Amino acid sequence: VKRVLVLGGGMVGSVLARDLAADGAHQVTVADRRPQALAALSAGGLAAVEVDLADAQHLRSVASAYDVIVGALPGALGFAALGAMIETGRPYVDISFMPEDALSLDELAREAGVSCVVDCGVAPGMASMLAARAARLLDPCERIDIYVGGLPAEPSWPYGYRAGFSPHDVIEEYVRPARMKVGGRIVVKEALSEPELIEVPGVGTLEAFNTDGLRSLLTTLDVPDMREKTLRYPGHRELMSVLRWSGFFDTQPVAANGSLVRPLDVTAALLFPRWAFAPGEADVTVLRVSAVGQREGRRRRLLWDLVDCHDPLTDTRSMARTTAFPAAIVTRLIVEGRLGQPGVHPPEWVAGQPQLLDHILAELGRRGVRFHSSAEDLD
Amino acid sequence: VKRVLVLGGGMVGSVLARDLAADGAHQVTVADRRPQALAALSAGGLAAVEVDLADAQHLRSVASAYDVIVGALPGALGFAALGAMIETGRPYVDISFMPEDALSLDELAREAGVSCVVDCGVAPGMASMLAARAARLLDPCERIDIYVGGLPAEPSWPYGYRAGFSPHDVIEEYVRPARMKVGGRIVVKEALSEPELIEVPGVGTLEAFNTDGLRSLLTTLDVPDMREKTLRYPGHRELMSVLRWSGFFDTQPVAANGSLVRPLDVTAALLFPRWAFAPGEADVTVLRVSAVGQREGRRRRLLWDLVDCHDPLTDTRSMARTTAFPAAIVTRLIVEGRLGQPGVHPPEWVAGQPQLLDHILAELGRRGVRFHSSAEDLD
Repeated sequence: VKRVLVLGGGMVGSVLARDLAADGAHQVTVADRRPQALAALSAGGLAAVEVDLADAQHLRSVASAYDVIVGALPGALGFAALGAMIETGRPYVDISFMPEDALSLDELAREAGVSCVVDCGVAPGMASMLAARAARLLDPCERIDIYVGGLPAEPSWPYGYRAGFSPHDVIEEYVRPARMKVGGRIVVKEALSEPELIEVPGVGTLEAFNTDGLRSLLTTLDVPDMREKTLRYPGHRELMSVLRWSGFFDTQPVAANGSLVRPLDVTAALLFPRWAFAPGEADVTVLRVSAVGQREGRRRRLLWDLVDCHDPLTDTRSMARTTAFPAAIVTRLIVEGRLGQPGVHPPEWVAGQPQLLDHILAELGRRGVRFHSSAEDLD
Repeated sequence: VKRVLVLGGGMVGSVLARDLAADGAHQVTVADRRPQALAALSAGGLAAVEVDLADAQHLRSVASAYDVIVGALPGALGFAALGAMIETGRPYVDISFMPEDALSLDELAREAGVSCVVDCGVAPGMASMLAARAARLLDPCERIDIYVGGLPAEPSWPYGYRAGFSPHDVIEEYVRPARMKVGGRIVVKEALSEPELIEVPGVGTLEAFNTDGLRSLLTTLDVPDMREKTLRYPGHRELMSVLRWSGFFDTQPVAANGSLVRPLDVTAALLFPRWAFAPGEADVTVLRVSAVGQREGRRRRLLWDLVDCHDPLTDTRSMARTTAFPAAIVTRLIVEGRLGQPGVHPPEWVAGQPQLLDHILAELGRRGVRFHSSAEDLD
């Protein structure tokens, strides 16, 4: 029985821990500092340990007592935690959407002989693995488009949006310039730009717009055209554009009645309660990976579609399911010794072994997260 | 030659002072504290005196040296200035859109033997006078609708709006509950509610919504149905509703990154530069007073329409023209001794003498501010 430590007992970390603890194959402990999170974990029968997740040194000393570590931290803490885990010498699976380049620690991980898989959620994560599969199935692969969104099942005025976490992280997506591949070159466009409407059966019409979500795919896949777009209910993008234009997302302080304030802090404080899910409120995760290229002498489009819903039986949000399950499944692969090469690996690296991706997709299916794959001839 | 003191040398006050000084009939001085305003007045050949307009005592002592006083102050300073002017014993004409009830000082003004005309701009002001005329022409007058808006001549994304003053005052209109008369009773509805589209020849389609602009008309006119609506380019209302719903207009402080801030102060700080007119940018003022009732045995609708534009020759904004000119004309009536009854009078009181309103409309016409009146049978 391996001892597994989950860093962070929030929305995703708690689902991750429950999944790993479910079959008795692992002894799971969750590290968090927030009394409320610790109490909820204990109430759910999970072992918890009080750790300040921002304190890398403490994190390191605690983690050393475990065999495998899984990170479910806020993006801002992800990079420091990755560095600390490499130092512990323990394999590490992470879903933190860190702003830094995790692959810059690859050398360090190789030297330490540690295997780390980062960005191991839904997108990045499953989207990256499916993009890698597409790039392998098509020869050449001309183009890959990723569409992803976590949404409330029912849109309500005015934003048609709920966030299970701080609006800071969502707003960050709407501000950070979006990198994409166009004609073989990396091109940067404004976030929220190039809106398009797409139909998602079972959900309705959604609006897609550029965000900076390709991450490692920009360099790991040799595909000349790649884009990632975020999906929201129509109207959300316009409001975000207006707020951004108006300065409400600015981190540069403004003078308000004599005191200096960062507008983004006020915006996040106002939107946090308004974007919060109501207890039991259902959400849905939509992911589409579309790839165009040559296969068996024909120009084809390969499609993978996921529409995953809130689980009412366990009241588990889809956003938590689709993010936690891939990391839990990859953690099990590491525990079983099927993924151990030292280095910091992006998720598309896992897809380099097709049978591992098949296994992950099958395991997701067992948990009710089912991708629908299809193909069409374009000629 | 009467000595006239204009309180406030801003957008409206400076136009007021120029109008009064134009024909040499008055010796005009403008009181302001802002060095920039004082410099601009002097550059324009107007006498200026440095006065803190928020200091009622200083205001009173300065005003005592003049024969007539005209107020062009921010709404927040209007009520205190009115009280101070009554104490000086000098007639007072005011366009400050004060939140307090000016008529509550009527008794005081009567006792002091001072004549004050308040709300003497375009709406309240001309709209109030025309509503009073409609109520007199129709017997009975069933209903009066006032539509008013000051707008940029060209709407630009996202707000389609410019303010010549602090957004605080505009946002106040979007927050304060709107009082109206419905079926003979005063009814309160949410500001921004009951939107409707109206066509304005020369401007296009505008959106009208409830605001709290009837003021004294609520009690001075015996008309069972009266509404006032603000006009904006379509889309503005929706954005204001979203910002209000989101808490951006709240005056209750929120904790933002450790410090307490009033969201409205941040919003005003952000929107102020973004709502500012560009130098020379044209604006337009739209006013429609619509009244329905019986006249000469028929059910009729009486309409007064104004579409006034920025004056490119003098680079005078329409909003300043349409607000300043009525006050200047009424000031002249007072100087000429044609309006002198002690008390605090709303503008509709002036319309009680039809020849005075005719005179005001003719004088406005001489200045290029022309109302188009029309009537139609409804039977």
